[in-house]
Amino acid sequence: MKVAVVGAGALGLYYGALLQRSGVETHFLLRRDYEAVSRSGLQVYSINGDFHLPKVNAWRTSREIGPVDLVLVGLKTFANDHYAEMIAPLLGEHSQILTLQNGLGNEESLAELFGAERVIGGVAFLCSNRGEPGVVHHLGAGRIILGEFQRLDRDRLDQLVQIFQQAGVDCKATDDLKRARWEKLVWNIPFNGLAALLQQPVDRLLAVGATRKLVRELMLEVIAAGNQQGLLKAIPESYADTMLEFTDNMGEYRPSMQIDREEGRQLETGAIFRNPLLFGAAKGVPMPRVEMLATLLEQGQL
Amino acid sequence: MKVAVVGAGALGLYYGALLQRSGVETHFLLRRDYEAVSRSGLQVYSINGDFHLPKVNAWRTSREIGPVDLVLVGLKTFANDHYAEMIAPLLGEHSQILTLQNGLGNEESLAELFGAERVIGGVAFLCSNRGEPGVVHHLGAGRIILGEFQRLDRDRLDQLVQIFQQAGVDCKATDDLKRARWEKLVWNIPFNGLAALLQQPVDRLLAVGATRKLVRELMLEVIAAGNQQGLLKAIPESYADTMLEFTDNMGEYRPSMQIDREEGRQLETGAIFRNPLLFGAAKGVPMPRVEMLATLLEQGQL
Repeated sequence: MKVAVVGAGALGLYYGALLQRSGVETHFLLRRDYEAVSRSGLQVYSINGDFHLPKVNAWRTSREIGPVDLVLVGLKTFANDHYAEMIAPLLGEHSQILTLQNGLGNEESLAELFGAERVIGGVAFLCSNRGEPGVVHHLGAGRIILGEFQRLDRDRLDQLVQIFQQAGVDCKATDDLKRARWEKLVWNIPFNGLAALLQQPVDRLLAVGATRKLVRELMLEVIAAGNQQGLLKAIPESYADTMLEFTDNMGEYRPSMQIDREEGRQLETGAIFRNPLLFGAAKGVPMPRVEMLATLLEQGQL
Repeated sequence: MKVAVVGAGALGLYYGALLQRSGVETHFLLRRDYEAVSRSGLQVYSINGDFHLPKVNAWRTSREIGPVDLVLVGLKTFANDHYAEMIAPLLGEHSQILTLQNGLGNEESLAELFGAERVIGGVAFLCSNRGEPGVVHHLGAGRIILGEFQRLDRDRLDQLVQIFQQAGVDCKATDDLKRARWEKLVWNIPFNGLAALLQQPVDRLLAVGATRKLVRELMLEVIAAGNQQGLLKAIPESYADTMLEFTDNMGEYRPSMQIDREEGRQLETGAIFRNPLLFGAAKGVPMPRVEMLATLLEQGQL
């Protein structure tokens, strides 16, 4: 098994490091971290135990890596227009592409460029940050749920699950990738959006009755839109309450988009907001609050 | 004619100064500006010409002023729970109360406390700021539209219009105060709200297609709610476009609520947002975007 990690931010570095540690031949396409990783390898500080990989296959271009069995895509979604140049050189006849990116539309874009049969999607529940170059911090969670984009090959999916499990990742397969993606959006849209807009962690948002109500209304809009996308099983409205209670236990957690905004980075509003809005609109589901939140986030970046 | 100005912020000081300059016996209930005004009078810097009133009737309590013919209320609306103590000592048998405050609910509160027959409402289109104590800056506009709360006495209204006109104020009467209030909300809700939330002047909001669309959607929610309040004549949807074009000509104007937030003052979300939402809800008109904006503004103040 030969793996290439494309988009080696906190997520790509973390899962790539786990795969390499478990014996998988792993190659990292790097930009910011290239010098540091080439020289000193990769340092992971993790709640599950720190470790250091002294020798890492670090590359500046995909062409140097050549064809691999699996491309693991961890790019920020606003960089998706670089898919072709970054991924094409990594593909052989049977290469698979796994995107662990946020939001919606990534599998579709990859399928259009490289063929739907190659594409596997994964929803990652990971709390991690990059430190100085060559260092990644794993702060919490880490589960991955994998699903086929076209539901062609459950065996292939099970093999991939096994590879991640052998690397120490809490990984499972789903028959309904779409549902997993929409379920994650039920959390991501209100909490990433409001925390980034207001620069407040989740506990402050949930402490105020009117804001808690708004969070729930946003969730219900996402659930309604998701349930029109041909999921195998509908997401019940009670999932909103489950997510509220789940988040009540997080304390003063700062969602990634809040951190992105604090640090002046571009926000992934396209994948997390605009694409779900397009999918909702295509089915005639009104999402006035989600659209307003997207617009406010985008305007706030100007 | 004896007038008492209650709530002598930028609006109260400005109109009070104009009345006094025209010969009306005017008394100011002052807190922050009491010392300065007692000592040095009132200085108005106005686009219509600067002027100075060397001797001003400045008071610390309403009791010292005693009964007047007209109470001019310019309080910030979050101070309305001080109506009783501030206004009661100013009332004689025939005293009138004119509120030029923002938003909805002010006439209703005054009527409940002091009798509906006393209450006149006014919608002020004024751009003014307080400077150092004893100084007010008039930056633009200044028109007042006056209406009876109960439509009892058109003569009384005309006399009041005349008094303001003699003081140099562009003033006219309306038979439909409610409509004037809702029309002003069509502007105030989107522009005060979004400018305060995003800390951006109106031209930046209108320059982005999605945000301009959101402004218009907020306006349409306000128009729909207003049109269920028994206005004499409905506000047409085209009023939204009129207001958009009107605002396109304002340049980088910063609405008062944006300035309030920049300067860390309390925002008038009750009168400008929550009361209109209550009136809308009472008639079953959904206002999801207006409610969301109110919630975000309130949460942002925490």
